[in-house]
Amino acid sequence: MDYDSLFRKHLDALRAEGNYRVFAELERENGAFPRARRHTDGTVSGVTVWCSNDYLGMGQHPVVLTAMHEALDRCGAGAGGTRNISGNNHDHVLLEAELADLHGKEAALLFTSGYVSNWAALGTLGAKLEGCVILSDAFNHASMIEGIRHARCEKRIWKHNDPRDLERHLAELDPAAPKVVAFESVYSMDGDIAPIAEILDVAEKYGAMTYLDEVHAVGMYGPRGGGVAEREGLMDRVTLIEGTLGKAFGVVGGYVTGSRDLVDFIRSFASGFIFTTALPPAVAAGARASIRHLKGSDMERMRQRANVAKLRARLDAIGIPHLPNPSHIVPVMVKDPVKCKMISDILLRDYGIYVQPINYPTVPKGGERLRLTPTPYHSDADIDHLVRALSDLWSQCALSRAVA
Amino acid sequence: MDYDSLFRKHLDALRAEGNYRVFAELERENGAFPRARRHTDGTVSGVTVWCSNDYLGMGQHPVVLTAMHEALDRCGAGAGGTRNISGNNHDHVLLEAELADLHGKEAALLFTSGYVSNWAALGTLGAKLEGCVILSDAFNHASMIEGIRHARCEKRIWKHNDPRDLERHLAELDPAAPKVVAFESVYSMDGDIAPIAEILDVAEKYGAMTYLDEVHAVGMYGPRGGGVAEREGLMDRVTLIEGTLGKAFGVVGGYVTGSRDLVDFIRSFASGFIFTTALPPAVAAGARASIRHLKGSDMERMRQRANVAKLRARLDAIGIPHLPNPSHIVPVMVKDPVKCKMISDILLRDYGIYVQPINYPTVPKGGERLRLTPTPYHSDADIDHLVRALSDLWSQCALSRAVA
Repeated sequence: MDYDSLFRKHLDALRAEGNYRVFAELERENGAFPRARRHTDGTVSGVTVWCSNDYLGMGQHPVVLTAMHEALDRCGAGAGGTRNISGNNHDHVLLEAELADLHGKEAALLFTSGYVSNWAALGTLGAKLEGCVILSDAFNHASMIEGIRHARCEKRIWKHNDPRDLERHLAELDPAAPKVVAFESVYSMDGDIAPIAEILDVAEKYGAMTYLDEVHAVGMYGPRGGGVAEREGLMDRVTLIEGTLGKAFGVVGGYVTGSRDLVDFIRSFASGFIFTTALPPAVAAGARASIRHLKGSDMERMRQRANVAKLRARLDAIGIPHLPNPSHIVPVMVKDPVKCKMISDILLRDYGIYVQPINYPTVPKGGERLRLTPTPYHSDADIDHLVRALSDLWSQCALSRAVA
Repeated sequence: MDYDSLFRKHLDALRAEGNYRVFAELERENGAFPRARRHTDGTVSGVTVWCSNDYLGMGQHPVVLTAMHEALDRCGAGAGGTRNISGNNHDHVLLEAELADLHGKEAALLFTSGYVSNWAALGTLGAKLEGCVILSDAFNHASMIEGIRHARCEKRIWKHNDPRDLERHLAELDPAAPKVVAFESVYSMDGDIAPIAEILDVAEKYGAMTYLDEVHAVGMYGPRGGGVAEREGLMDRVTLIEGTLGKAFGVVGGYVTGSRDLVDFIRSFASGFIFTTALPPAVAAGARASIRHLKGSDMERMRQRANVAKLRARLDAIGIPHLPNPSHIVPVMVKDPVKCKMISDILLRDYGIYVQPINYPTVPKGGERLRLTPTPYHSDADIDHLVRALSDLWSQCALSRAVA
């Protein structure tokens, strides 16, 4: 059997739909964020990155890099095993204490990625709690969907950010059944924010535990960077807060926080936690330094917010349409997959601006966009250059402008 | 509903079975491997680690650490995004080329862990290839089992390392159906090695593709550390070779290698690859340095093998029973869960020797063991100290000795 031809058939179908992905090859430039070197066929050129999830530039912060260098010198490269078999390093334990403190919880558990933390935690809750029902927001991330699928328990999908629809589902369920209400605070592609308090009200009314994914919010919101739930004074009401070390904290890895028993339960039963090599001590040390810094420093968040406001005002001034939302994500709407890809290509080639086009299936058809993420380190000149470039291209591509 | 009491119920059951895990808290000592500091209630003591999967001590090798320091200084900490959205760094591309070369394949694809690479690759193959059947060795790792489960395709479990049983299953299947024969080279707990050539013969006869997990073998076997398939001249006959960067290579991460189309297929469709933050550039740089070093240096493998032989001879001399196998893993059989845990505790407390007890469900009941992994950096004095300690404890615990 010619397996390669089977693979090619699927890849050709992807190309025909316009959904085949080619990765831009970058080389991040420490000390020059958001600048990067772009590699193409042996040549290297400079670009400004406008779509990084290193939202606050912590990936180049001296406190993070110093902690990582120090841990490399102290402990070496890898952890050397699973957490249970020789891989549980002092730095993991310190990081988990830092995370528990960040969210005001009794305990925290580290995973190799945010994806794995969602997959493993939801999968374990749904599979091990007898009769469990997971109620999932319709726009939840792929990792949560896979975790719920993995659990093979009953599931209900409620309308995005709609506590009334959630309540309708909850009211139909057996009051004695364990229930998990799973949702995110900041949704990645639209940048909208969940009505957390209302969702908690409903969940509590029906005795459901709550599972809140704050991956796009940790480090970014709340006086200590604990996320939207911290900002709104709601952390103690959320049963489990999940987060990442790979976005605003600038490193890599995922985690969950909650009560001692909840965390111990996931630690003890989640296959995706148990049977995998622990993160390198240096990664844990870098993430901890980043969290500690952002607990005490508001400067990065303030500058980032100022840049988001500046960019939005400039886009509004020239009528470039972008989704209004209360977060740090600025989705510039192109609403055409071919033009979206084309604009991204021209920005890269002619303007040295890198922003990945977001097409179906990541967003619905007709929702094609450039997802811009201004950081504290984009200068006024960077914003100016981007806005002028978009204005040129909007005219070139005959895209409609918003009415001022 | 009191969710914590539900969690406690499960945890109590685990404790009652003797399967509740307490992690030893270590702090690896760069430059002193296999030595580590052990943290207990605020006090720190020195231990010698005898159960690390950093099999060759590459986690402290200067070429690895230098590459990681350099990449941290050059690129900063994290990748800043998924591979598709700003996270594809030059160092990832270089590492994938290195991995493809290691296994003589056209392409390679990096994952956040070996667990995720198995889960995502097998899950994608089984789900996307219409009518696919996965034939899985009965002793395959949890990550492979979860991947196959995730695929929701037809599956067959064949008897461990038994090509005749595999053939019996293959003969029953539709000749036109795509088939994946999934197995490992070195099995982690018994240290036995698959009859790869015979399995390939059978798979080829029935037109099945082959999926070989070499996580315990890469870096360790073959003239360039390509694994058991390299040693046996079989790499070109295996369709997909999966490996890890977190064991003999001493860092963290997983990967698959194969034809360009196969790798592109998994790259394009695997949720666990697409929707997750890429590994830090420094991790990729460190892993690449490790692979390059072990392609050219046999010294670590030779010293490691010499230490395995020394330890086995010493155990034989005093009748401490260990499973015979052709690999680098030395399973000392205790065959009693309580004594296994007790011996491990006393070794740690009284002898400064850390070896995690392996009990059910990781191994079958009655198969409780100490899984020893001698490295190139265990000294003769370390071996001597371990063997004397085991001899003492074997007498103390009234365990039977092998007849010489």
